[in-house]
Amino acid sequence: MTLKNDRLLRALRREPVDSTPVWIMRQAGRYLPEYRETRAKAGDFLTLCKTPELACEVTLQPLRRFELDAAILFSDILTIPDAMGLGLTLNEGIGPRFSRPLRSSTDVERLPEVDVITDLAYVTDAVKMIRHELHGAVPLIGFSGSPWTLATYMVEGGGSKDFRRIKSMMHDQPAVAHALLQKNTDAIINYLKAQAAAGVQSIMLFDTWGGVLSTPDYADFSLGYMAQIVAALKSDDISRDIPVTLFTKGGGLWLEKIADTGCDAVGLDWTIPLCDAYRRIGDRAALQGNMDPTVLYASDAKVQQEATRILNEIGGANGHIFNLGHGIHPQIEPNRVKTLVDTVHSVSASIRNG
Amino acid sequence: MTLKNDRLLRALRREPVDSTPVWIMRQAGRYLPEYRETRAKAGDFLTLCKTPELACEVTLQPLRRFELDAAILFSDILTIPDAMGLGLTLNEGIGPRFSRPLRSSTDVERLPEVDVITDLAYVTDAVKMIRHELHGAVPLIGFSGSPWTLATYMVEGGGSKDFRRIKSMMHDQPAVAHALLQKNTDAIINYLKAQAAAGVQSIMLFDTWGGVLSTPDYADFSLGYMAQIVAALKSDDISRDIPVTLFTKGGGLWLEKIADTGCDAVGLDWTIPLCDAYRRIGDRAALQGNMDPTVLYASDAKVQQEATRILNEIGGANGHIFNLGHGIHPQIEPNRVKTLVDTVHSVSASIRNG
Repeated sequence: MTLKNDRLLRALRREPVDSTPVWIMRQAGRYLPEYRETRAKAGDFLTLCKTPELACEVTLQPLRRFELDAAILFSDILTIPDAMGLGLTLNEGIGPRFSRPLRSSTDVERLPEVDVITDLAYVTDAVKMIRHELHGAVPLIGFSGSPWTLATYMVEGGGSKDFRRIKSMMHDQPAVAHALLQKNTDAIINYLKAQAAAGVQSIMLFDTWGGVLSTPDYADFSLGYMAQIVAALKSDDISRDIPVTLFTKGGGLWLEKIADTGCDAVGLDWTIPLCDAYRRIGDRAALQGNMDPTVLYASDAKVQQEATRILNEIGGANGHIFNLGHGIHPQIEPNRVKTLVDTVHSVSASIRNG
Repeated sequence: MTLKNDRLLRALRREPVDSTPVWIMRQAGRYLPEYRETRAKAGDFLTLCKTPELACEVTLQPLRRFELDAAILFSDILTIPDAMGLGLTLNEGIGPRFSRPLRSSTDVERLPEVDVITDLAYVTDAVKMIRHELHGAVPLIGFSGSPWTLATYMVEGGGSKDFRRIKSMMHDQPAVAHALLQKNTDAIINYLKAQAAAGVQSIMLFDTWGGVLSTPDYADFSLGYMAQIVAALKSDDISRDIPVTLFTKGGGLWLEKIADTGCDAVGLDWTIPLCDAYRRIGDRAALQGNMDPTVLYASDAKVQQEATRILNEIGGANGHIFNLGHGIHPQIEPNRVKTLVDTVHSVSASIRNG
């Protein structure tokens, strides 16, 4: 099916576009009243993720309000460890918790393989349903958490401030940590291939916690596994042409290494100037980002000013996808997002027209 | 008084040393049983800070166990906002809380000036007492939180994950944010001058939360004010020869800019390789850091290996002070610190001896 709006895919291939494509991490989320309504209907977050009709509905909600250039599958990064039987609960305000975290080498050895086709059918069903409902309006982005990021939750048992348990495992039992990361990697590859077969048109890996590592540990325990995933997707008939974006929050020091994986785009948090990233990466990969999500708490005028400043940093060069530098906060007023999306389109079009 | 051990000051001046000086952020802290005992005696953390005899005692405790090359004043970064009347409480597990956080421009306008001599006499008294008790064994480091870092706590009312309130102020009412930062800066300058007059021999600014800012916001709202402090200390007769270290956690992208303030040393968290920092900064400033604090959860062998790896990155070049990349965690076994300190001294001496 031909896409009505293929700006995102063109930008990911570093081809010219009429205006800069924009989507928002967590664009389907709590800042939207209609999302909160659907979630209330579902009862809890995990039911929302696991009910394809509802996941499809919330995926489409932001597209009805804003001229976004992509849809992103509504799901959670922890579906894989949930399918491995770690007992996931997701509670607002508390964050994710696993009732059976991995604490020993035996725990890691016993971790079952995930049968993506059966255990995560709710995800691929949602993908098919969303593709159908989109009618080719915009591309659909699929995603997974990175092997390292999943491992942090699986070993810590939830979010962490100091990553004490997973880092202790990494420092003291590196073979156990590597075994876990390889299991995650294998599962993620199958998961993303299944998402590709079901119809996602772009893929993103969220490495939310890679930035807490030293440079050598990042290379060994996070980036190396993401590189495996990129290579596996690029050597598969179904997924080979689907652009892959890698995003390590706090990864500004490592952009060249991220691009070296052969990914199509590098996600940027808000701490690095887009112009610096562009100077370092050039035409080796597209760049996605990177407005500080807290700017959306400010006035429309400030949102316009900041979006314009960022767009001017790259001056209409090919290969930029506008986004926030991290997910949108639940307290944001939806009209701010409209201001942002419309500003990105109009300002980037006028930059291109000189 | 001549120092018996002046390695720290020599390294801060980029002069040759026989072995690399080492101290540990939060070296006087909860990982030491004797600290927990003194704190229990004090009743609560703030009383410990505000009782010079007890602050002196815990400052000296780690020096009795380990061959550390510096003492650091035991205190808290939030003494200044506490003296401004914001109502500080510090509870283990919860973190700092202000009962009267700053929420409006009026709150900022009404913020009183701190009279360091009277309101923070407990700090300068502790400095004098510690200097006396040290008998010139090692230099004493004084410190303050950075203007931005203090402002995050003062506006958020405590710790934060998203820094929503302070960043909203910064984006929407930049003049109010600047007024607050200038008040903090003025107070910090007086505070550090008073510490210098009382006898600290090195000064450190902790910018724990500068790393949550975009590059332009970091320059405007954090680094610019730290530069003011450096300039003020360098133009004062009493403090001019006291080396100043600036540490922005998550500031790896901005090291050159930090060195450009004219500070004597740049603190590094563990995410940036020391060799990269040295290549970027060269002889413009000394470098302090940068082992991941979580390595101390691992075995002695791993601690030795990681300390050796870091020391080899700089290969005995002048101007390195070994430290962790952030404060030591409360759960660390004290013997690990002994392993670390002794390894740093012996390995760095043998690197210097070829």
